[in-house]
Amino acid sequence: MSKKMTIILFSGDYDKALAALILANSGKELDMEDKMFFGFWGLFLLRNPEKVSLENKTGYEKMFTLMTPKGPDDLPLSKMNFSGIGKALLNEMMEENDAPPLDAFLKGAIKKGVKFYGCKLSMEVMGFDKEELIPELEVIDAKGYLEDAIESDIQLFI
Amino acid sequence: MSKKMTIILFSGDYDKALAALILANSGKELDMEDKMFFGFWGLFLLRNPEKVSLENKTGYEKMFTLMTPKGPDDLPLSKMNFSGIGKALLNEMMEENDAPPLDAFLKGAIKKGVKFYGCKLSMEVMGFDKEELIPELEVIDAKGYLEDAIESDIQLFI
Amino acid sequence: MSKKMTIILFSGDYDKALAALILANSGKELDMEDKMFFGFWGLFLLRNPEKVSLENKTGYEKMFTLMTPKGPDDLPLSKMNFSGIGKALLNEMMEENDAPPLDAFLKGAIKKGVKFYGCKLSMEVMGFDKEELIPELEVIDAKGYLEDAIESDIQLFI
Repeated sequence: MSKKMTIILFSGDYDKALAALILANSGKELDMEDKMFFGFWGLFLLRNPEKVSLENKTGYEKMFTLMTPKGPDDLPLSKMNFSGIGKALLNEMMEENDAPPLDAFLKGAIKKGVKFYGCKLSMEVMGFDKEELIPELEVIDAKGYLEDAIESDIQLFI
Repeated sequence: MSKKMTIILFSGDYDKALAALILANSGKELDMEDKMFFGFWGLFLLRNPEKVSLENKTGYEKMFTLMTPKGPDDLPLSKMNFSGIGKALLNEMMEENDAPPLDAFLKGAIKKGVKFYGCKLSMEVMGFDKEELIPELEVIDAKGYLEDAIESDIQLFI
Repeated sequence: MSKKMTIILFSGDYDKALAALILANSGKELDMEDKMFFGFWGLFLLRNPEKVSLENKTGYEKMFTLMTPKGPDDLPLSKMNFSGIGKALLNEMMEENDAPPLDAFLKGAIKKGVKFYGCKLSMEVMGFDKEELIPELEVIDAKGYLEDAIESDIQLFI
């Protein structure tokens, strides 16, 4: 029976999303069953910049929609201001070492069959419609996550 | 036998405390045995704003006592400055969706029987007396946490 | 058979490194088999300030080398600006309570036999040579981590 990993991506940082996706991709290469759960800021990774919509949103939700990152390329670094290093520098260094960008790791994970789950409460509070996020996303609640996590060999909160 | 979850709340952020408490509450609804361990900034969630005291504290501890958040309502967002969204906006959006505030999730967890543990070393270093924190808190050391974590089905560090 | 713990230290914060090392040291005192994996900013903890080098580095890597923390003493607090408390204050409070500084916990973990692993991709991207980090470090990739994590009783991402 294949080993299982569940990762919660709570963070909306470029570097943390990168770490989560590298682990998920590597898990698939080891034939693991990988499930990723996106809550709060983690959902920003899954926004489709071309599907951002203001329809059926309250005033607060519209404000939130416009002020927050719209997909992988838009995420900031968790240490962006720390010691002055910016995302541009990291990206240059990744390119020099032929490391693919975040977006490629996301596409790779989808292609390899990593499962994507979005936290229902976070989506409601933030006013995200399922249509604004990647189509592979399934919406569940915290209990749904826990039922999967109990059965898994590795659980991480990122 | 019921499944077990151990959560370390290290962070002092409103949103991360919310995630930890939502998971703990959901665990109880699934009849899990939930234990939460509070270290460093995580202890701020458990301060009772009416019991904050300067007695028997050194000068540094007094400074620290006065400069840091006093209970759930006082915690900042982990992304407070990120893209300009503030806690007020999040709270408005939570209210619009009938999601209870952090304080309600804390009270719910206590009522449902989630166990609360405070890290002894953190409390000593920060100069927190047991009396300043919620009465349900039991003080243990890192080994006490590990002994519980080894036996649990889910371990998270938040 | 001894119980196993695997900790990923992704963060480059003084306080989070402290938490990770306290857990690892406590695990050894319980005769656990502890493995720590250092990725991204977590690698800063393991830099040897006397071995920082600019040789064989690209321009970006040189910039990065000079702009980032050089070893344990150089790490910032995750909440440094939050409510104005600085690392100096925390260190004074730790000293008052006879809690050893970060560096002592690192040396203790090495002495007690905690295993140290560095993420290959992070080291390549950041331009870190093995010689610039502690000599106990072994370099592995994400799959190497996962194979250990699957077999372990506790997995944490810090």
